[in-house]
Amino acid sequence: MKRVKLIVAYDGTNYHGWQVQPNGVTIEGMLNHSLTELTGESVVVTGASRTDAGVHSLGNVAVFDTNTKIPAEKISFALNQRLPEDIVVQGSCEVPIDFHPRRCASRKTYVYKILNRTFPMPIYRHDTYFTYRKMDIENMQKAAQYVVGEHDFKSFCSVHAQVDSTVRTIENITITKEQDLIQIYVTGNGFLYHMVRILAGTLMQVGMGEKQPKDMRKILAACDRTAAGPTAPAHGLTMVGISYF
Amino acid sequence: MKRVKLIVAYDGTNYHGWQVQPNGVTIEGMLNHSLTELTGESVVVTGASRTDAGVHSLGNVAVFDTNTKIPAEKISFALNQRLPEDIVVQGSCEVPIDFHPRRCASRKTYVYKILNRTFPMPIYRHDTYFTYRKMDIENMQKAAQYVVGEHDFKSFCSVHAQVDSTVRTIENITITKEQDLIQIYVTGNGFLYHMVRILAGTLMQVGMGEKQPKDMRKILAACDRTAAGPTAPAHGLTMVGISYF
Repeated sequence: MKRVKLIVAYDGTNYHGWQVQPNGVTIEGMLNHSLTELTGESVVVTGASRTDAGVHSLGNVAVFDTNTKIPAEKISFALNQRLPEDIVVQGSCEVPIDFHPRRCASRKTYVYKILNRTFPMPIYRHDTYFTYRKMDIENMQKAAQYVVGEHDFKSFCSVHAQVDSTVRTIENITITKEQDLIQIYVTGNGFLYHMVRILAGTLMQVGMGEKQPKDMRKILAACDRTAAGPTAPAHGLTMVGISYF
Repeated sequence: MKRVKLIVAYDGTNYHGWQVQPNGVTIEGMLNHSLTELTGESVVVTGASRTDAGVHSLGNVAVFDTNTKIPAEKISFALNQRLPEDIVVQGSCEVPIDFHPRRCASRKTYVYKILNRTFPMPIYRHDTYFTYRKMDIENMQKAAQYVVGEHDFKSFCSVHAQVDSTVRTIENITITKEQDLIQIYVTGNGFLYHMVRILAGTLMQVGMGEKQPKDMRKILAACDRTAAGPTAPAHGLTMVGISYF
């Protein structure tokens, strides 16, 4: 028995998110199906980031246990032959049998992309959130600095989340603007349910002048979901990658 | 009667190209249909670049004649309400009644995008051509300089094209590489059928070492389609925009 780690990229447009569910096709479901076919074993993967419906990934992580004779490094190639073109495994390798993609300490990076112009641009519609509302990037950058560090992010957590603690550490937020494209990169040791999307929705309110950068301090202190901005739409969010310590 | 110019952006993935045809949905067909609904007149647009099936656009140009009372500048907004999300008009304005998007002197820019890495990346699959073959960008740049200027581009023209002259002027070719993305920008006063895709296919052969940069001179001189490389796949091509003198 060996444990194999997969780096999984996908276009989330046509999926009901990562996690297997009774109705709807999911990324996890497709991986389980293709790995079961490939290995002849009943495979169930464990994912690192259970992304919502419509969220994309350049490098989510999943593991599974197998007795297959296929070398771990070759599994990515064999698996891609069986997966649809909107899910592509970027690499596979053996990991220690006790490696767990959520429980092991890691650094995750997400990017929220905003297309900010007069009209939407069709070829970017699947992975950017469009708004014609002018954004003040400098104010968004100032606001972002208030949430960097260890904080109780209860205000930035969906009320439907079931967690023991809402304390997390954001290591870094970088907001760039190149032509019409604003990108919010967020790196941290873990994220609450909807946390990146609520952060993005709140930073956009700051960008539009509906909130001031210093309001972020009050929002954090409130520990109340209604203090923060709206949950930004899923399709603007992409999981960039995960590194383990 | 007035003539109205439209700047048209689209994701070509789900269309049988620009030009109306008996079987299959086209960009031109969608514009005709939506403009006919909007104006109550039987509208037929004339396009600048009749892009192939799968080719995208950030700024193709089309004109149509109308007696509508809707101000020319407002037509873009009204039309976008009726168009699907993969076609978005970026602007509209009145032009002189004798303005013709193909016959008037113009400068057109296209970009051919190549994703050059070990594995495909799903979110980029619709508008980039994927290859894992390593590309030598410097050689591609050297090769491109041979075709800049006025030349007989018969070798870079589909044998199915029906044209009087195959002489065209390429003003500029810029090839950039940023991370895994190679972009070939081509600007000229007009392009033959499949010309940008054959240029891209030939430059990729140079990038892979199958041809040398100096071979471009021989290919041009041959005036023979079989001397050039393959026609690169349509989905990697995007019409960037057109400026009129």
